[in-house]
Amino acid sequence: MTNPLISDRLVDFILTEVVDVDALCRLPAFEEHSRATIGPWLEANRRLAREHLFATWRPMDVEPPTFEKGAVKTHPLMVEAWRKLVELGVLTATRPAHEGGQQLPLTVATMSSAYLMAANLSAYGFAGLSAGAAHLIEAFGSPEVRARFLEPMATGRWSGTMALTEPQAGSSLADVTTKATRTADDDGHFLISGAKIFISGGDQSFTENIVHLVLARIEGAPAGTKGISLFAVPKLRPTARGLVPNDVHVSGVIHKIGWRGLPSVALAFGDEGDCHGYLVGPEHQGLRCMFQMMNEARIMVGVNAAATASVAFHESVAWAQERRQGRPLSNATPSQPQVALIEHADVRRMLMRQKAIVEGSLCLLAVTARSADLSAHAVDPAARERAKWLLDLLTPVAKSFPAEKGFEANALAVQIHGGYGYTTEYPPEAWLREQKLNSIHEGTTTIHSLDLLGRKAIAGAGAALQALQEELEGDLARADGLDVTALRSGLDRLISLTSTLGARGASGDVEGMMSHSADYLDFVSTLIIGWMWLKLSLATKNATDDFAKGLRAAEQYWRVTELSRLPAIAERCESNERSYLDATIGYFR
Amino acid sequence: MTNPLISDRLVDFILTEVVDVDALCRLPAFEEHSRATIGPWLEANRRLAREHLFATWRPMDVEPPTFEKGAVKTHPLMVEAWRKLVELGVLTATRPAHEGGQQLPLTVATMSSAYLMAANLSAYGFAGLSAGAAHLIEAFGSPEVRARFLEPMATGRWSGTMALTEPQAGSSLADVTTKATRTADDDGHFLISGAKIFISGGDQSFTENIVHLVLARIEGAPAGTKGISLFAVPKLRPTARGLVPNDVHVSGVIHKIGWRGLPSVALAFGDEGDCHGYLVGPEHQGLRCMFQMMNEARIMVGVNAAATASVAFHESVAWAQERRQGRPLSNATPSQPQVALIEHADVRRMLMRQKAIVEGSLCLLAVTARSADLSAHAVDPAARERAKWLLDLLTPVAKSFPAEKGFEANALAVQIHGGYGYTTEYPPEAWLREQKLNSIHEGTTTIHSLDLLGRKAIAGAGAALQALQEELEGDLARADGLDVTALRSGLDRLISLTSTLGARGASGDVEGMMSHSADYLDFVSTLIIGWMWLKLSLATKNATDDFAKGLRAAEQYWRVTELSRLPAIAERCESNERSYLDATIGYFR
Repeated sequence: MTNPLISDRLVDFILTEVVDVDALCRLPAFEEHSRATIGPWLEANRRLAREHLFATWRPMDVEPPTFEKGAVKTHPLMVEAWRKLVELGVLTATRPAHEGGQQLPLTVATMSSAYLMAANLSAYGFAGLSAGAAHLIEAFGSPEVRARFLEPMATGRWSGTMALTEPQAGSSLADVTTKATRTADDDGHFLISGAKIFISGGDQSFTENIVHLVLARIEGAPAGTKGISLFAVPKLRPTARGLVPNDVHVSGVIHKIGWRGLPSVALAFGDEGDCHGYLVGPEHQGLRCMFQMMNEARIMVGVNAAATASVAFHESVAWAQERRQGRPLSNATPSQPQVALIEHADVRRMLMRQKAIVEGSLCLLAVTARSADLSAHAVDPAARERAKWLLDLLTPVAKSFPAEKGFEANALAVQIHGGYGYTTEYPPEAWLREQKLNSIHEGTTTIHSLDLLGRKAIAGAGAALQALQEELEGDLARADGLDVTALRSGLDRLISLTSTLGARGASGDVEGMMSHSADYLDFVSTLIIGWMWLKLSLATKNATDDFAKGLRAAEQYWRVTELSRLPAIAERCESNERSYLDATIGYFR
Repeated sequence: MTNPLISDRLVDFILTEVVDVDALCRLPAFEEHSRATIGPWLEANRRLAREHLFATWRPMDVEPPTFEKGAVKTHPLMVEAWRKLVELGVLTATRPAHEGGQQLPLTVATMSSAYLMAANLSAYGFAGLSAGAAHLIEAFGSPEVRARFLEPMATGRWSGTMALTEPQAGSSLADVTTKATRTADDDGHFLISGAKIFISGGDQSFTENIVHLVLARIEGAPAGTKGISLFAVPKLRPTARGLVPNDVHVSGVIHKIGWRGLPSVALAFGDEGDCHGYLVGPEHQGLRCMFQMMNEARIMVGVNAAATASVAFHESVAWAQERRQGRPLSNATPSQPQVALIEHADVRRMLMRQKAIVEGSLCLLAVTARSADLSAHAVDPAARERAKWLLDLLTPVAKSFPAEKGFEANALAVQIHGGYGYTTEYPPEAWLREQKLNSIHEGTTTIHSLDLLGRKAIAGAGAALQALQEELEGDLARADGLDVTALRSGLDRLISLTSTLGARGASGDVEGMMSHSADYLDFVSTLIIGWMWLKLSLATKNATDDFAKGLRAAEQYWRVTELSRLPAIAERCESNERSYLDATIGYFR
């Protein structure tokens, strides 16, 4: 059986029954769209994912890019994969029509991209990063910068990257030291110098040029995050006599354990003093510009994670159906033939856990993307405002839950495959490797836990939590016949817990307030995924086919297995338990 | 800083303060031993691990064995590693003096082997498997078989393997089909024919011969586990004219994702009709013989897992101390220098979790091994009996907890290393790969959960649980001043939960009784590790140095974070929640 990557029926169900894509299409921004345009778009993505991209994944994993004579050579299969991704329109799917885009709701693009990621995370990665870089230029570039870079990036002749990280500045972007020096040149360029590391797609061999979106400090800028500016720094500089080298050099290629088709490179800017960079957005506002794109970038990582867990889940289901091993506990007569793995309850438990994580994540990503769509395009300003609060709150969860629990789901896929799962002859081990990056890049889980508790939950006097509360209570109110006790009391507890922690911080004990940020993230994530399962379950309207029964079983699984953990987590946070907060290095030696 | 692999102070502390190795040495079986013999033994193991084996690990991971012209060529470094392991005495450490062994308590050998495994899991793997195979021959071989195989195996001239698994019989050993045909030959050999897979060390290039301990069916044997016999099948047959080929062929090498120094091979026995095998133990009792060694083999896997988590834990501690990133939440002035990772509370949380898992596991393994020592060598038959019950109960936990939670700990080591952890330039990713096998080989976690609930907990009218209860209550009684509420109520709940599940099974609902076996294993494991942390904490006797404070902090961490989960798990099992039990394949498609 061919791996479906993602369940079509689930995606269609989420779009139509959970996030009401029809209602989105009634917004003026999306009025050109309807099921008549969205259906074919989804179909085209599915076809490219299944009929082309998926077959390119293993070769790209097995033969990672090479680095010779200063240049990275990507897998030859990327040439056609890139062309097909560009032709499909992924670079401009959500960009406005007046910029040449399809102006699709992000909600739809999020779901369609999941297929491409599940098929080949690395191949899609090039496109996702390029689209993000182009989006920054579209949003913040001066007319000159836009004229210089936007068209070739939007049409895929050039690719784009995000060049943020430096060896001494990973999670701590405040410590970026790459320099930008003003010049008197007519075209207003700066001279860039510095070293970047872990730049995904930082070099490749399938487009004629690459534009790096680089964080750097203009000389004399203030220290910290408030002195960082954003620059477009092309690998090759467009001049009257064509493209010429721009003093951007690959200083090394990092050997990642997954995403091996997408090179991660160390870049040296301006070693020869001649690296031109073009300011994007206002001086010293680089991080602010970048952060305006951050929600989208983080949702994308969540989709990376959910997609990687999904393809492994479907592989597990097929294996559990195909592989025969052992006999039922109630009738283990050895003369009987062996039964399929799925006949064993504990195998079904592992599948159910994968399903709950994968499908709960996909639903959360659709709901989060819908908040992004509404925050930008709802007609009523109050609705936009409220959607923005919800988006801010959901984003760290949508980024980190699929990554953390998706890793667990991917490990279960290996486990279900037994000894075979531990070999490179079967694919689950590769998805396990791919997955681990998602809890690290685009902000580690630690960073997102601090963001959620320290910024999102207590910001605006709790406006984000209030938006969550209103939304969730709306669903609770229509949950006739379902047991929503745990969800309801979890929501109440979240409000009181947040207020307790906020008060602790306000009293000056910031370390005490934040020390259980991981627990807080776990609490909020578990609750929100419980909410997603409520939504999915309600949307089945008590239908009695296997699809509906499966969704309701997963709702029950999550409620009984996960929502039951909430009181103990809250208690731990409230009690200000200090076992590790007070620890010093000597405790661990 | 050099990675210490395992903490010496912790190991010494566990041996002297927790499992009372002095008392073990007062038993007649171990009367030749005392701290005066055990200290140098530990020291020799530590030295070999740190000064030799650890340096061989990476090369063996990077250059796995090759397979050419029908033979496996292992890494050249294995020649010296093997010689040193043999010289150290690991093949015979626990074997009796009258068999040429050092007759060390298994408790001591378990702790000393942890260093060797942490240094190079694959290298030690050859030795561990060989020792296990030799032990089977020692215990069950006829005088002729012992004379033929034991001396060369005990002295390391030949190695040994365990050849159980077949393509259609992984977890289901009842389905072994390898055949043994009687011959009229003087030496009583059988002719063996069949295919085995996943045979670790099934071929290598550093000993002159290999003896496979093979499960096979004598023609006419009953179906299922009661018709399986055990055979010693050498790669080369000892004859009057020396060693001659014995029709054992390598049919393929499996590409594992870890333990890459130790080849996993597919073996074909008797393709040319001339494979001689020698019966070990009574006919049809092969699985029973094998199972008599199983506790030890499973403890060994637990040590594999704890050791692999330990080396990664120590690497994390060093990295957290060395790597500077970000600033304290309470003072993030960018003009201040960055602080070490350990200054961030959430990094300390990750380290504390690793510590709780690693050191709790090592303690459990020592306690389990001690039960094995007492079950074999206690003077009082009642004490032996009781130790045997406890050993049976602890073994599935000692095998699976370090494997499952060790994998989580290994993932945390990658996470703490951030982007660097995702590369092959840093070691944590390799330990993550190594670890994943431990939840699969020697019985998957599913198998152990079924074993624990279906066999161990309810066997002998609850004798094993009673032994646990008495031991744990002894420690609770001396836990003055410590909060043992959760442990005490967890123990009570375990008794009632087991009785509820047992009654469910007795009423005929075996599937319902067993469907939450994974939850049951989780419950028992979490409780028992809590007990280990109580033991460790009590043994610090309120000392105020960092070592003691670290142990007490980890006790608190485990109690607050993990023991608090117990009521919800028990409730789930008791309620006979059926979300996945009732699921069919259609739920997952």
